[in-house]
Amino acid sequence: MRVLITGGAGFIGKKLAARLLERGRLGDGRIDHVTLFDVAPAEGLPADPRLEIRTGDITRMGVLLDLLRPGHDAIYHLAAVVSGAAEADIDLGYAVNLDGTRHLVEAVRAFGRKPRLVFASSVAVFGGDMPEVIGDETHLTPQTSYGAQKAMGELLVADYHRKGFMDGRSLRLPTIVVRPGRPNKAASTWASSIFREPLAGQEAVCPVGRDAAMYVLSPRRVVDALVHAMELPSEAFGMTRSLTLPGKTYSVAEMVTALERVAGRNVVDRIRWEPDPVIQRIVAGWPTRFETPRAERLGFQADDSLEEIVQQHIEDELGGRFVA
Amino acid sequence: MRVLITGGAGFIGKKLAARLLERGRLGDGRIDHVTLFDVAPAEGLPADPRLEIRTGDITRMGVLLDLLRPGHDAIYHLAAVVSGAAEADIDLGYAVNLDGTRHLVEAVRAFGRKPRLVFASSVAVFGGDMPEVIGDETHLTPQTSYGAQKAMGELLVADYHRKGFMDGRSLRLPTIVVRPGRPNKAASTWASSIFREPLAGQEAVCPVGRDAAMYVLSPRRVVDALVHAMELPSEAFGMTRSLTLPGKTYSVAEMVTALERVAGRNVVDRIRWEPDPVIQRIVAGWPTRFETPRAERLGFQADDSLEEIVQQHIEDELGGRFVA
Repeated sequence: MRVLITGGAGFIGKKLAARLLERGRLGDGRIDHVTLFDVAPAEGLPADPRLEIRTGDITRMGVLLDLLRPGHDAIYHLAAVVSGAAEADIDLGYAVNLDGTRHLVEAVRAFGRKPRLVFASSVAVFGGDMPEVIGDETHLTPQTSYGAQKAMGELLVADYHRKGFMDGRSLRLPTIVVRPGRPNKAASTWASSIFREPLAGQEAVCPVGRDAAMYVLSPRRVVDALVHAMELPSEAFGMTRSLTLPGKTYSVAEMVTALERVAGRNVVDRIRWEPDPVIQRIVAGWPTRFETPRAERLGFQADDSLEEIVQQHIEDELGGRFVA
Repeated sequence: MRVLITGGAGFIGKKLAARLLERGRLGDGRIDHVTLFDVAPAEGLPADPRLEIRTGDITRMGVLLDLLRPGHDAIYHLAAVVSGAAEADIDLGYAVNLDGTRHLVEAVRAFGRKPRLVFASSVAVFGGDMPEVIGDETHLTPQTSYGAQKAMGELLVADYHRKGFMDGRSLRLPTIVVRPGRPNKAASTWASSIFREPLAGQEAVCPVGRDAAMYVLSPRRVVDALVHAMELPSEAFGMTRSLTLPGKTYSVAEMVTALERVAGRNVVDRIRWEPDPVIQRIVAGWPTRFETPRAERLGFQADDSLEEIVQQHIEDELGGRFVA
């Protein structure tokens, strides 16, 4: 079988590709080919004859038609302009996140192969005046263009599924922690920084207080979820093709405690507390209480503990060693 | 002030235009101009120097730019390919219902006038595996392309509102009964036919049983709601720019009883019962139990009774007389 990953140069896309190549299978199918598609080439993956790196602009329909013409059986649609960028440039956000998704589902429809498609949505579809706890039947009230575009993508996937053009499933991802790489302009970037930089011997800035909280999932668990979502039978999702992934909500105080337990006092002391009222206000508007019984029944799993998330980062990104 | 109504040749658009011209005001503003825009010219309205009839194709961005260039203060976006047509022709549905709405909000953004905009959404945004009662915070799970496109329109309106390009509000309309005109291909067409045709001395076919039910609102009340939605201050909607209009759910048995009370046994005997399993299955999948506390707090109102709806149809469409 042939697998396509859009947004394949992102850290989740690359980790997913590595996992798929290692497994060699999805459900009953042997993976013969994995295409990583992105606007820039995916780098840093081990050489593999099954792996193809493709680049192109998802806002151009012809690019998607060329990409899908060889025929894929399983498609992961991860490509997106992230929240800060979609908010700063509304045209770019709609072009990539909405039109890009339409081009993909239209190209899927064009070739008539009816592949399975897993769309990475986000808990950014929730916001504004929310109920106390967000459940499986809570309406989507995004307060960013990114969230609005992800919500529209879910509707497109569900509609093109219902029309029989593909077998579509959408997963709403929590904030992924610990994200490898460098801090970015996301208002959530500190949630990875306060682990990542201190473990690498560098200072991290925490702009929010110890009572701020975040709904999180680890890189390993999100890859688990992407694989599981593709392997589940279509009937498992029924008429509702979207679900919120199980995560766990941790306060900053809990994050710091977990980091200290795993790595010690010295590491935690590298966090510099610099309250930023703007970021605090944004973060305070994010939903933190979720109930995800449907996803749990379907076998999706959150991490067991924050300590495990920290250990996982040390193993996967730091070769097992941190700067004490 | 200048008012624009897209879909202005439809029966709701024309009734709304007549009401606005008769009122002469929206909130504190005097109505100087009403533009009725549609793919075909709006017909049958009394001559009025304030009224302009425009035609054009909403799927073309340039048409929208020309339409909005003179500057409108209040925009009603009613234009849509209806559910049966959007289901039969997916390209047409997305072109008119999604792209048309994007062209409109983009043209609004282009001229920077920040008008109020009321978008006519539909209870077709609900469907599939629903909770027992649909409330103000229930997620949108459309089971038609029409419903998916309306849900995407709501997200667009909310996002362009949030970005400050306009003051947007979306109303989810119940099935409008009694709809004037002829039966159409909608699976709900019988809900108007069983009143309209017998009152005009003609036979009507009812394809569903007496226990089938429908969430309905009358033409007068939907025009009331459209006027009220435009007059409410922006803060009334808060961060959630969409709401479901209050309607009432009536069984077919209740509809027939009301018709008999108002018009007599002879009229009711013109209903021919011809069960159609396909239509019965579609109708059985529609939501019927709604709770709309938010809209009620904001002053939106359902009809008082079915008898009133029947009387209203006789007055507004039949000149006060029906065929006994």
